[in-house]
Amino acid sequence: MSIAVYLPSEASTEDWCRMLRDLMPDWEVHPLQKVPDPAAVEYAVVWRPKTGCMTPFPNLKAIVSIGAGIDHVLADAELPQDVPIIRTVGTDLTQRMKEYVALHVLRHHRALPALQVSQAARKWAPVVVPPASGRRVGVMGLGNLGSAAASLLAAIGFDVVGWSRSPKEIAGVTTFAGDGGLAPFLAGTEILVCLLPLTDQTRGILNADTFNQLKRGACIINAARGPHLVDEDLIEVLASGQIEAATLDVFHIEPLPSDHPFWDNPKITITPHVASLIDAPTGSRIIARNLRTFAETGTVADVADARRGY
Amino acid sequence: MSIAVYLPSEASTEDWCRMLRDLMPDWEVHPLQKVPDPAAVEYAVVWRPKTGCMTPFPNLKAIVSIGAGIDHVLADAELPQDVPIIRTVGTDLTQRMKEYVALHVLRHHRALPALQVSQAARKWAPVVVPPASGRRVGVMGLGNLGSAAASLLAAIGFDVVGWSRSPKEIAGVTTFAGDGGLAPFLAGTEILVCLLPLTDQTRGILNADTFNQLKRGACIINAARGPHLVDEDLIEVLASGQIEAATLDVFHIEPLPSDHPFWDNPKITITPHVASLIDAPTGSRIIARNLRTFAETGTVADVADARRGY
Repeated sequence: MSIAVYLPSEASTEDWCRMLRDLMPDWEVHPLQKVPDPAAVEYAVVWRPKTGCMTPFPNLKAIVSIGAGIDHVLADAELPQDVPIIRTVGTDLTQRMKEYVALHVLRHHRALPALQVSQAARKWAPVVVPPASGRRVGVMGLGNLGSAAASLLAAIGFDVVGWSRSPKEIAGVTTFAGDGGLAPFLAGTEILVCLLPLTDQTRGILNADTFNQLKRGACIINAARGPHLVDEDLIEVLASGQIEAATLDVFHIEPLPSDHPFWDNPKITITPHVASLIDAPTGSRIIARNLRTFAETGTVADVADARRGY
Repeated sequence: MSIAVYLPSEASTEDWCRMLRDLMPDWEVHPLQKVPDPAAVEYAVVWRPKTGCMTPFPNLKAIVSIGAGIDHVLADAELPQDVPIIRTVGTDLTQRMKEYVALHVLRHHRALPALQVSQAARKWAPVVVPPASGRRVGVMGLGNLGSAAASLLAAIGFDVVGWSRSPKEIAGVTTFAGDGGLAPFLAGTEILVCLLPLTDQTRGILNADTFNQLKRGACIINAARGPHLVDEDLIEVLASGQIEAATLDVFHIEPLPSDHPFWDNPKITITPHVASLIDAPTGSRIIARNLRTFAETGTVADVADARRGY
C-alpha cells in the first residue's frame, strides 16, 4: 500500500510522512510531490491540496482530509470523482472545540471585554449580567462538533437552541431544522455560534439578513470557516450596534492579511484558527487507524458525503 | 417580628427594606439606623456592618449576611456573641460562580491573553495548548461554590484536584484535605482557583510559599476574598515568571484604589467583585424564606459556624 502526503508546508509534509511511517511500517509513505511510482499510490493524505495535485494517481482508493472539514479538498476543481473522502475527527478535536466555544460564549455572556476596558482606565465598574439560564445561545450546525458544543453549553446552564439542515435531537437543547427553522432559531438568540460545514448552502450565511434577526446587541462567534461570513456585513452591523461584538477564528484568507480591517476593530476578537487544532501525533494516529480500516473493509465511519459537502 | 437592615449605601438599604417589606408584609422592616423600637428588633440583615452597629438590639435572634461569606459580619469586634449568623446562598450564586471560574480557567488554559497581545500587533501567531485533560486545575475550598466549580471544570474535561479543611468527596475530582494535603494538592497544579472562606487559617494563604509549590508558569484565580492574597508576593512571582498570570475579583480594599499597582500590571486581570453577585430580587427572596423558616423552627440550613468562620 502506498500513501502520498501533501500539506502546504514542506516541513509539515515531512513530519507527517515520518509519523505515518512510524505508525504504518508496512506501508509506503512519500511526500505527494516525490512519489516514485504514481500508479502504486492508493491513498492521499492532504491538507489544502493544490488544484490538480491528485490527477497523477490513477488508482486512488481514498483521499484523507487532515481535518474535520472537506471543503479544502472539494475546492480542487480537478479532484478525481467518486473517490471517497475520509474526514479526520476524534475526541481531541471535539474536546478542543467545546473548550473554545465555552470560553468565548462565557466571555461575551459575562461582559469580559467591557470589564477589561474598565481596567485599562483604572475604573471599578461592575457589570450585572443574568445567570446563564437567562441567556439564549444559538448553535448553527449540529454535527460532531456542534452537538458536543451545544451539550456543554447546556450543561453550563445556558438556554441553548440549535439549528441544522436535517432534524437532530440533543438533550437539553431546543432544535430547529432546515430553511423554515432558521427564523425561529435566530429570533431571541443573543450569542450565535457558527459550527456549520462549508457548503454552497452555508457560504455567506452569516450576513446582514441573519444578523438583523438576532436580538439587538447579540454577539457572533465563527469557529467554522471564513467564507461563512460576509465580512462587510459584519463591519456594518457592528457599527450600527445591532451586533455588539464578534469572535472570529476563521477567515476568507488565512493568515488574515495584516491590512484587513478586522485586526483593529475593537469589537472583533481574532484568534488565529486555533479553535480546534488536531495536533499531529493525535491526527496521525486517527488517520493510520482509519486507513487500515478502510483498506480492510472498503469503508470507515468517517467517510464524508461529497455531494452534501461534509 | 421586626427586622433591621444595614448596607453601606443608604439607597441600597432603602431598596432592600422595600423588597423585604413586599415579601414579608406581616413583618416590620426598618433601616438599622432608623429603628423606632430597638428592643423589638429580632433580626438584622446586613452587608459589611459597622463596628458596634448591632449592640443597640438586646433581643437579636439571628443576623443575616447578605452574601455567602460571614467574614464581613465577624469583622465587627463588638458583634453580639452567640447570635446565629445565617448565610445567603442559592442556586443563582452558585451558578454565577461556576460561570466565572469556567470562563477564567478556560481563558488561561487557552492562552487567550497571549492571542490578544498578538491581535494588537496584527500578528497571526497560533498557540498550541494541550486539551483540558492535560491541564491540572486546583480548586481551594470545596464548600457550595468550590464543589460546584470543581464539578463543572471536571465536566469540561480538566484534570481537577481539590483541597479543603475537612475531607470531601466529589465525583471526577481528586481531593486533598488539611495541612498535610496542601503540598500534594499544589504540586503539579497549573491553574489555581481560590474559593476558600476567609478565616484566620486562610488569611494570606495565597503567598510566595504557596505560589512556589505550583508548576512553573501557573495561573492564579482569586474569587474568594482579597485578604487571602499577599499582594506583594503576587507581584514578585509574576515578575520572576514563577506565576504567569492572575485574575483577581476581590481585593483588600474595594473598590481597588486607583493608585494600586495591580491596575496596570499586564499579567493581572481585574474584575470588580462580579464573580458571584446576588442580585437583590433573588437575594431578598432567599432571605425572606430563611427568616420565616428560622422564626418557625429556630434554625435553618444556611446557619454558619461562627467558630469556624464560615
